[in-house]
Amino acid sequence: MAKEIERKFLVSGKRWRHVADAGVTIRQGYLVAMDDRSLRVRTYGDGRSCLTLKIGKTALSRDEYEFDIDIGVATDMLRHAVGTVLEKVRYEVEHEGFTWEIDEYGGRYSGLVIAEVELDSEADLPEIPDWVGREVTGDDRYSNQVMALSAATTGPVDEPHPQSG
Amino acid sequence: MAKEIERKFLVSGKRWRHVADAGVTIRQGYLVAMDDRSLRVRTYGDGRSCLTLKIGKTALSRDEYEFDIDIGVATDMLRHAVGTVLEKVRYEVEHEGFTWEIDEYGGRYSGLVIAEVELDSEADLPEIPDWVGREVTGDDRYSNQVMALSAATTGPVDEPHPQSG
Repeated sequence: MAKEIERKFLVSGKRWRHVADAGVTIRQGYLVAMDDRSLRVRTYGDGRSCLTLKIGKTALSRDEYEFDIDIGVATDMLRHAVGTVLEKVRYEVEHEGFTWEIDEYGGRYSGLVIAEVELDSEADLPEIPDWVGREVTGDDRYSNQVMALSAATTGPVDEPHPQSG
Repeated sequence: MAKEIERKFLVSGKRWRHVADAGVTIRQGYLVAMDDRSLRVRTYGDGRSCLTLKIGKTALSRDEYEFDIDIGVATDMLRHAVGTVLEKVRYEVEHEGFTWEIDEYGGRYSGLVIAEVELDSEADLPEIPDWVGREVTGDDRYSNQVMALSAATTGPVDEPHPQSG
């Protein structure tokens, strides 16, 4: 029943790779994707799996319930996902006291890299690493739920995401 | 990922009480209640709690995923239930090789008693106990999901359920 407060940014270039950990692959699908609640199933490359229920409309703060589940069950549940099963590799970077999660997408969203930082309160002001680009907190196009349900085949965004550097 | 095949009946009279176990109280709410999938949270009087995802449109056969969860978490989740949190006492009766579950409803559905028998296959023909009344398998009015979401305040049914005898 944790509250989830996070900020989300586009990632510019590849400099973040030098400070990131080895990363873990993630496959995730939405079994429920509604305006005010969602149920997500996620399998990790290291054998973990979880089921996550999020309830609440605001991006900055909502109720979240997460349960570890068996990976065989999780994989079976992914058959019932609505929309696309998203594929990404999640990396972590420690920066000035905050943990940044960097999601590098594969599949139909290949080329998209997003960084998120979780905050203890909305007043927290993390220092922004220099490989972090434009903030997209609250921009629904970068919501995994919207990305999974989107009918587009070229990606969630209408602008280029330079990955050089 | 079990398949759920069951038949449902109204219960006539009180004779079933003589063959039933002590029963356990159940409180349950729906966090998601859609046409083809539902997410139910249930707390039991004996301290257990579970989260159940059902996927599939047909009443006789659907995919069901159930997870034991912490009762404190489950109780918190009930705050987010859509519609009514149903209250009932569930009894079990063994009869001629089949286990019957009898749900005696409280709260706004007080007076309603439903019996269900789970089958290994749709070809199973359990002997019907004499305290079992009309079959309501597939009758949406007796679906817990419909009962929870119903706006009615007097009960799910348009006919009397005699509880004497």
